[in-house]
Amino acid sequence: MNETLNTIKNRYSCRNYTGAAVSKEDLEAISLAAVQAPSAMNQQPWEIVVLTNKTLIDEIDSAIMNMLATQEDNALYTRIKNRGGKIFYNAPCMYIIAQRPGTDIDCGIICENIALAASSLGLGNVICKLAGLAFDTAKGSEYKEKLIPAGYEFGVAVLIGHASDKQGIAHQVDMSKIKYID
Amino acid sequence: MNETLNTIKNRYSCRNYTGAAVSKEDLEAISLAAVQAPSAMNQQPWEIVVLTNKTLIDEIDSAIMNMLATQEDNALYTRIKNRGGKIFYNAPCMYIIAQRPGTDIDCGIICENIALAASSLGLGNVICKLAGLAFDTAKGSEYKEKLIPAGYEFGVAVLIGHASDKQGIAHQVDMSKIKYID
Repeated sequence: MNETLNTIKNRYSCRNYTGAAVSKEDLEAISLAAVQAPSAMNQQPWEIVVLTNKTLIDEIDSAIMNMLATQEDNALYTRIKNRGGKIFYNAPCMYIIAQRPGTDIDCGIICENIALAASSLGLGNVICKLAGLAFDTAKGSEYKEKLIPAGYEFGVAVLIGHASDKQGIAHQVDMSKIKYID
Repeated sequence: MNETLNTIKNRYSCRNYTGAAVSKEDLEAISLAAVQAPSAMNQQPWEIVVLTNKTLIDEIDSAIMNMLATQEDNALYTRIKNRGGKIFYNAPCMYIIAQRPGTDIDCGIICENIALAASSLGLGNVICKLAGLAFDTAKGSEYKEKLIPAGYEFGVAVLIGHASDKQGIAHQVDMSKIKYID
């Protein structure tokens, strides 16, 4: 098994970070891997915002939790409370993929490049769709203006940082999902 | 630069295949990398159909081209004719990602795993959304019954095979797509 296959195999969704910053070198390597992602007709329908302001990440985390706490259906709030209470798991860095409307597949492609690049560098990472709730909070329009370029919409985020645990566990594979037709 | 970052860097969209079959070992490694892909809430909202019947792939290719030839707007037909006339570039293998409706981001994530796994094994590959036109051809419902499991829809395909050229060129990266906010 080559190293790329190994990275794919061992990557897991990290839900516990030390909070320590990611080095500039690692961020640059991950950013380069991001823009190397293929896209339909090579349109590259994205803008990538690398948010490394942990104070702001933590503020957004609290804003989302405060919003969820007031919702009638508190299933999501309870689920997050039960797993530690933090949407962003104390991650010091968030890659936000802003996308042109209707380009979700491209968004998925680039977010996997970001996640695998981070894993290959020994960094924990997790793809986080919930980050988009930031724009539904009281300060949502302010966050949107700061984080999402005009003409783009929130696609998905990837949280990146140093894992608190030594090595998490990847999900169980389901080979029944594969069917060969010859 | 580690090998995973190198695979990401050197991967390119291969548009010319020898037509020779991909080995069973390589297919198994790629399929494993596919089901190792992360997905929202680990729902794994996909079924992967690995089509290695080249006669059928070629038949679908012709069916799509015949359909495109009769369309009033022939821009797509002309574009494909000008680049060799084959939708599937003589590829001997097509990974079809069938997805639950509304899970395009997951589809993008898994298709990038498939593409990178293939590249890491020295195989050419290209993500092919146009393969979905198969289901709009005269035999579309027959193809759908054969290739798309019930409850799923076509997401995207990845063509895989041995590249005719030694090494294609990856797209130009655009670092202006990255913005750091600290």
